[in-house]
Amino acid sequence: MHNFQDWAGEIARNMEATLSMLLPAATVAPTKLHDAMRYSTLGGGKRVRAMLTFAAGEVTRAPQHRLSMVAAAVEMIHAYSLIHDDMPCMDDDVLRRGRPTCHVEFDEATALLAGDALQALAFELISAPTLNDNAAAQLKLVKLLAEACGSRGMAGGQAIDLASVDRQISLPELEYMHMLKTGALIRASVNMGAHCGNSFDAGVLEKIDHYGKCVGLAFQVVDDILDCASNTALLGKTAGKDKDSNKPTYVSLMGMSSAKQFADELLDDAISSVSAFREPANRLRELAMFIVRRDH
Amino acid sequence: MHNFQDWAGEIARNMEATLSMLLPAATVAPTKLHDAMRYSTLGGGKRVRAMLTFAAGEVTRAPQHRLSMVAAAVEMIHAYSLIHDDMPCMDDDVLRRGRPTCHVEFDEATALLAGDALQALAFELISAPTLNDNAAAQLKLVKLLAEACGSRGMAGGQAIDLASVDRQISLPELEYMHMLKTGALIRASVNMGAHCGNSFDAGVLEKIDHYGKCVGLAFQVVDDILDCASNTALLGKTAGKDKDSNKPTYVSLMGMSSAKQFADELLDDAISSVSAFREPANRLRELAMFIVRRDH
Repeated sequence: MHNFQDWAGEIARNMEATLSMLLPAATVAPTKLHDAMRYSTLGGGKRVRAMLTFAAGEVTRAPQHRLSMVAAAVEMIHAYSLIHDDMPCMDDDVLRRGRPTCHVEFDEATALLAGDALQALAFELISAPTLNDNAAAQLKLVKLLAEACGSRGMAGGQAIDLASVDRQISLPELEYMHMLKTGALIRASVNMGAHCGNSFDAGVLEKIDHYGKCVGLAFQVVDDILDCASNTALLGKTAGKDKDSNKPTYVSLMGMSSAKQFADELLDDAISSVSAFREPANRLRELAMFIVRRDH
Repeated sequence: MHNFQDWAGEIARNMEATLSMLLPAATVAPTKLHDAMRYSTLGGGKRVRAMLTFAAGEVTRAPQHRLSMVAAAVEMIHAYSLIHDDMPCMDDDVLRRGRPTCHVEFDEATALLAGDALQALAFELISAPTLNDNAAAQLKLVKLLAEACGSRGMAGGQAIDLASVDRQISLPELEYMHMLKTGALIRASVNMGAHCGNSFDAGVLEKIDHYGKCVGLAFQVVDDILDCASNTALLGKTAGKDKDSNKPTYVSLMGMSSAKQFADELLDDAISSVSAFREPANRLRELAMFIVRRDH
């Protein structure tokens, strides 16, 4: 069995190859649009969501091919959300993964359309008839992804985030915002990975969902901690930006030490929710640790 | 049997009621986002795409409930595309259906997110387990819609459209652009309606697809004719805009009389492709006439 580092590296390489194959070539018309889609999806990112899909799939013994496709769809949705989030009318950011953001490298219209087209491509992928011989289970994958993306998922979380700038919000409001903004897609990554398996024990799926919920929230708490403590070079994106733009964070609302303690509690909760699965849940445990203990 | 006018009115009312029920209430958080989604989807439009879905469904005897949901999904995609298309970085338009465009009535960030969330909601709808007891057929609906939205469909057409401003393009290039920009979703509306039925004769589906292809193109040719000949009050959107912004149109490339003749040829082609279906294709025939003969 590989150690975690090797496993993570393997998934990152798998994702790069799979995404490169699935994204239309930059030589295919409309070339600028395809170029922008590839620019923003390939060559970077920690691929945390893909790792979560694969790790959850180990618990339900999901086939690797199916996990690759589903993980690629999730990574496309993530890439699209970053493109739109960075646009001038949203966070107005110029740096992402150490490179110019999509609208800076191309232009705003191309960035808008690249995000739109990536969302569509993700749904095209997971509706491919070759993905799963159980069509009903596959439809459930489409539904999980669509719910995670919508106004009561990621897009809704971004709307609440925008509305919270320069405003006093409470800790429950902050938590609700993050449950949608980053939590929904992370939770969907986990649940979709589990649903790639061929057995659907409701009790197992429920525990995996709880894991996904905890890890999704922990991810954001740690992001806030890092944004406050880290620097731009290490993060690959503009550090301290939340504070500068008067965005409420876990650190600004709880203080640094309480935020760190909260992240640890979420980690414990995530790990104990999958303890019954023993060895097949090893990657889920390692991944939760990785997400909470990372330094960028 | 209702006459065409009554039938069209019934579908418009059905769509308004169905969409109003399916869209989250403007009182549900995030309220501004839901308000914007409702603003841009409800209260207007000819509902041509919904009509096409219903008309094609008559040929394959599709159940009304299924057609309503699928037509609503298509109308949500159409509404999202208009929101993004009107944004300052795209066509920068302030008027749509006689009302301020979404980013004018709300703000750019909300418009961006409302479009994003409408796309996701459309996929959520057509992946609902209650839609179809044949999950494989339902997955095909998801796939048809996703392909129509992506970079080799609507979003790709918009990218080519943007790239063609202030540039000389040929008639085949113009046709390719429109086949994607408006044609792909119109064709998908027709094909999805046909796929809502319970029988799937490949020959029937192929003829219906050809109808959709002709009508999709005719729709754009007529749009160009009207944009050139009509006025802002009647269109409910800014008239003469294509010419002002140096966008190539069928009228600018072919001349008015050739454009009108081309629209008539497409109409004949559409109607003859469904002639074998006799009475069940009556609505498809009437609808093709309506699309080509409309004055706004």
